[in-house]
Amino acid sequence: MNLQGPGTLLISEVGPRDGLQSVAGTMATADKCRWIDALHAAGLREIEVASFVPSRLLPQMADAADVVRHAASLPGLTVMALVPNLRGAEAALAAGAHKLTVPVSASEAHSLANVRKTPRQMVEEVRAIAALCRERAAACEVGISTAFGCTLQGAVAEDDVIRLAALCAEAGVQEVGLSDTVGYANPAQTRRLFRRLRQEIGEQAGAAHMHNTRGLGLANCLAAYEEGVRIFDASLGGLGGCPYAPGASGNVVTEDLVFMFEAMGVPTGIDLARLIEARAPLRAGLPGEPLYGMTPEAGLPKGFVQGAAHA
Amino acid sequence: MNLQGPGTLLISEVGPRDGLQSVAGTMATADKCRWIDALHAAGLREIEVASFVPSRLLPQMADAADVVRHAASLPGLTVMALVPNLRGAEAALAAGAHKLTVPVSASEAHSLANVRKTPRQMVEEVRAIAALCRERAAACEVGISTAFGCTLQGAVAEDDVIRLAALCAEAGVQEVGLSDTVGYANPAQTRRLFRRLRQEIGEQAGAAHMHNTRGLGLANCLAAYEEGVRIFDASLGGLGGCPYAPGASGNVVTEDLVFMFEAMGVPTGIDLARLIEARAPLRAGLPGEPLYGMTPEAGLPKGFVQGAAHA
Repeated sequence: MNLQGPGTLLISEVGPRDGLQSVAGTMATADKCRWIDALHAAGLREIEVASFVPSRLLPQMADAADVVRHAASLPGLTVMALVPNLRGAEAALAAGAHKLTVPVSASEAHSLANVRKTPRQMVEEVRAIAALCRERAAACEVGISTAFGCTLQGAVAEDDVIRLAALCAEAGVQEVGLSDTVGYANPAQTRRLFRRLRQEIGEQAGAAHMHNTRGLGLANCLAAYEEGVRIFDASLGGLGGCPYAPGASGNVVTEDLVFMFEAMGVPTGIDLARLIEARAPLRAGLPGEPLYGMTPEAGLPKGFVQGAAHA
Repeated sequence: MNLQGPGTLLISEVGPRDGLQSVAGTMATADKCRWIDALHAAGLREIEVASFVPSRLLPQMADAADVVRHAASLPGLTVMALVPNLRGAEAALAAGAHKLTVPVSASEAHSLANVRKTPRQMVEEVRAIAALCRERAAACEVGISTAFGCTLQGAVAEDDVIRLAALCAEAGVQEVGLSDTVGYANPAQTRRLFRRLRQEIGEQAGAAHMHNTRGLGLANCLAAYEEGVRIFDASLGGLGGCPYAPGASGNVVTEDLVFMFEAMGVPTGIDLARLIEARAPLRAGLPGEPLYGMTPEAGLPKGFVQGAAHA
């Protein structure tokens, strides 16, 4: 759901959920809220702020409801929460989330390891969550995890990915995106899969959630963009990743992604200077955690004026 | 000069020159030779091994002639050397270099700072070097530096870049490539400039030399590839960079670039596992120097078979 108009990309920030649940430390609730405020101030209009899972599994997310309540007070922000099941969906909607994201893994092995359900069982969960969202006038998306390969299973058949995406679309969610959970994707594959996704489910084709594990994150986003994708997940400072790929950096870095698109003349609605400033509350809340991102380190090019290249 | 056939990319390794002249330490000659041997063993068929400049300016390159002599003993390898002037060209050819590369900056400010000549004066130098190369049956290329912007001048007019490239092509070199010396390029600009370059000088259009200063290196290479570029400069471990961009990593990382193309099914002629092994002699020869590269850190994807995706 790109709320920023047809000409604009939607950069969906996943750091406060995907990032924070991947690190060893737990960020204090007040620090999370300060960070989310800074992201909002930079112009981000969709932020995945929390995950509604049992806190014994993810203590970093124990304050999910508080964080959602705070984020929902920020004007113009779509507050997104990850939910693995109907129980999580109930809790997230009760706290005031505007949009839910449900991970459905294309790899049976990963699905069982992650949620102890097969992909087909997850489709039934998605159907129930989507119905609940309709009832509560909330939005719902699915991200197909391991869509580009899996560290447990290895290759994942493209037919399986597209078939699963079609089932999820049919189950009643607004968007189905594809996630390169473990950083296996390459640009040719990215083009192929997003092209097939669009052919299969049309306007329900959702976000590209790419990882930078092997350095190809931005190249894959470029390939997806050229196939018509207009929603991109990214994480400030590249925070996050996959527990199965230790030492590898995780998500595409929001700062570098926004720089790429803005330099190309593609408006993102995000203020690059303020975006880079939003690293400060992240650092403050998670001292010692390594942050990625080349653009913040190198600075903007001499004479670079954001928006000057916009068509 | 892509010697690997029309269907294959040529990855031109620049680490032993571009990389080693950018670091503070000096690698011993024997260590340089061991590193070049390992690069050759991995399948690299063009390596820029040295720079022929006064050793008071670049003590790291004082052994340029010895390194060229050693590299020239490796079968099937095009031994390339950078030369800023005719005197350097004489020395490089005398040592046995097969191909010379001459940097010509599109930014007047950078050109004066780098070689104390204007771009137009450099074209005359190129003409003399190209004539010498013809006499000695050697090849000659030009890399247009700061083709995508300059830390001194800021923006560089695309018309200036293309005009200068045409003059260099007319001056008698085999190839003219474009270099993103300071990491300012974006994929839209990369596409535009390489398209114009090919329109202007046809088959003389040469290598894409991209930097990863702002994380866009591979995305820019992908854009160049899609415009028909088939020669890519890269540096093992991303060694190198620009003295004007401290803290920023430099060249596109050979390991990540080769992984990207091989994963896409585009043959590079390079063995990824041996390429990653070639980091060992680099580390041994330059202890403590930070190396970049995500693929070596993360490893190859589960079930990844190099060549399996080749069309």
